[in-house]
Amino acid sequence: MKTYSIALVPGDGIGPAVTDAAWQVVETVARGSGFVVEGARLPWSCDHYLETGAMMPDDGIAVLREHDAILLGAVGWPAKVPDSISLHGLLLPIRKAFRQYANIRPHRLLPGVEGPLRKSEFDILCVRENTEGEYSGAGGRVHQGSEDEVAVETAIFTRKGVERILRFGFEQARRRRGKLASVTKSNAQRHSMVFWDEVARDLAREYADVEVTSYHIDAIAARMVMAPETLDVVVASNLFGDVLTDLGAAIQGGLGFAASANLNPDRTTPSMFEPVHGSAPDIAHLGVANPIAAIWSGAMMLDHLGQTDAADRVMGAIETVTARGIGTIPGKHKTDEITRAVLAALD
Amino acid sequence: MKTYSIALVPGDGIGPAVTDAAWQVVETVARGSGFVVEGARLPWSCDHYLETGAMMPDDGIAVLREHDAILLGAVGWPAKVPDSISLHGLLLPIRKAFRQYANIRPHRLLPGVEGPLRKSEFDILCVRENTEGEYSGAGGRVHQGSEDEVAVETAIFTRKGVERILRFGFEQARRRRGKLASVTKSNAQRHSMVFWDEVARDLAREYADVEVTSYHIDAIAARMVMAPETLDVVVASNLFGDVLTDLGAAIQGGLGFAASANLNPDRTTPSMFEPVHGSAPDIAHLGVANPIAAIWSGAMMLDHLGQTDAADRVMGAIETVTARGIGTIPGKHKTDEITRAVLAALD
Ligand SMILES: CC(C)[C@H](C(=O)O)[C@@H](O)C(=O)O
Ligand SMILES: CC(C)[C@H](C(=O)O)[C@@H](O)C(=O)O
Repeated sequence: MKTYSIALVPGDGIGPAVTDAAWQVVETVARGSGFVVEGARLPWSCDHYLETGAMMPDDGIAVLREHDAILLGAVGWPAKVPDSISLHGLLLPIRKAFRQYANIRPHRLLPGVEGPLRKSEFDILCVRENTEGEYSGAGGRVHQGSEDEVAVETAIFTRKGVERILRFGFEQARRRRGKLASVTKSNAQRHSMVFWDEVARDLAREYADVEVTSYHIDAIAARMVMAPETLDVVVASNLFGDVLTDLGAAIQGGLGFAASANLNPDRTTPSMFEPVHGSAPDIAHLGVANPIAAIWSGAMMLDHLGQTDAADRVMGAIETVTARGIGTIPGKHKTDEITRAVLAALD
Repeated sequence: MKTYSIALVPGDGIGPAVTDAAWQVVETVARGSGFVVEGARLPWSCDHYLETGAMMPDDGIAVLREHDAILLGAVGWPAKVPDSISLHGLLLPIRKAFRQYANIRPHRLLPGVEGPLRKSEFDILCVRENTEGEYSGAGGRVHQGSEDEVAVETAIFTRKGVERILRFGFEQARRRRGKLASVTKSNAQRHSMVFWDEVARDLAREYADVEVTSYHIDAIAARMVMAPETLDVVVASNLFGDVLTDLGAAIQGGLGFAASANLNPDRTTPSMFEPVHGSAPDIAHLGVANPIAAIWSGAMMLDHLGQTDAADRVMGAIETVTARGIGTIPGKHKTDEITRAVLAALD
């Protein structure tokens, strides 16, 4: 029987609870669909850092590389460990080491979910560049602590990096409604963003069947709120994609519903699947974290592994559950109740 | 009689129509309030560029400097002149030359306006850094056009620049509901944004009466949509403020309602007042541009000049008009009709 080996990194705060939920669903649907998933639980987290001095062991990347995919909960617990250590010691190095350059995040309202907008008809797929750009980490500070201090932060864009993410965006648009929004701020950032626009313009010739529109980040942020129904695939840099996907999460009812995949489309290394939400340490002990974003991320993992029927079954179960009003209102149902409802709906 | 000399820069597209509207209102309220405004119309625009080879004359900044304030319509007409010339030849150099470091933009629903959110109770003042940061212009490209091309864009933050905008934000919070949201992305941008957080933390000691909260840009973008009522003053960098104020415009019903002031709080040089919207060349000939954002910007100018009663009268007139459903639905009323209604409501 086809067997997949999955690295489970539950992480911090509500991470373990939602990872457990997603994993139960993935295991159950696998059993019913004739394939096997084997999970290797890796306890890498802020507590792990406090015990060992590192968020993951030295051979962490090598360990992960042996798996077919990574299912991650959430990382970070600022009161215990600064983000500069926790995120830069686990989440961000994994994205970069495995060249998971396409961070994709679907934004639509699940049935039964009331979003903050009056409008409810939209279906957006954000494609975020995940390895370079504004989060390259380049920069520094001089005259630190003095009144003359200057800090610089350099965004680095490579043609290879920009081209591959745009190409991925065009491909997604082809498989959906044929529309691509390319996001820059080329009227104010004249080096990196003019470059992005040029690469997009060149690729547009190759994808003449895709209708591509260039938006400035400020304008498209407003558009996501005013006219989200006009957007299909949105492709953006690391920072712009980060902002737009939290906005996407907001219009779909909140972070409890926002799933994501960190993909290496070349499939030479494992991809990673995680809810967009953070570790929410303040509510971790309440047992009310919404597992739907994590379960949806699990469905994206199944899809990536080629188990599309199983992925569809999971999405169907999620929609059955939310349509019945379970998991749609923050805090109303416990994590366990929502998970049990999804498991029951799989039958 | 107290006389103010105002530089009028109508600009491109719908700029002249909305500037005219705002100017009529300002002149009328001045007459009724016992002061005089003298307007000097400066035809600097993309057409001016096509005629003369420059968006403004060599002594443009010197000319503007002689005035008490600048009222600007909108600049840019990409089909005629690239943004890299039009914006960088007029709007952006004025902001920088006059150290208009505080770009302030109020976001609330005018009576009678239905926004895109279900929620309608919010009143946010965004304070955007306007002279440095991500729009510093530093950067470049190597191996241009080749597959090895790399583009970098460097954000530059100075302590002076960060401290003065944060201080301005704290002062505004004191005059309002005492809450300040400071926006960074210090979990991913570890140089500039960690620096910003440090400066904010230091200043917070001095403003112990203000409740300051640090948000990441992605989280606060979502919050503006999910829970805008929890925000009071929001202070952010040039780019983050740019994005948040378009989002603010969106939740207040659209760019037709979004006013702004580019302030030099030290008052050593003129400040500039402009609607947040662009020149919208595609609708310029229709006569339906909403002048409310420009008129509101005019009220902010009067306020800055110390004519607070006149400013309040203008705001009152705007609110009377929108409460009657005039100017609240895009395209329904002509620019002229809305302007006449505001003028009538001034009596
Ligand atoms: C935690 C943070 C570094 C991360 C990011 O910005 O990439 C998160 O916001 C996300 O969107 O996955
Ligand atoms: C036109 C553009 C350069 C400008 C900016 O980003 O500053 C505009 O978007 C604004 O918000 O005033």
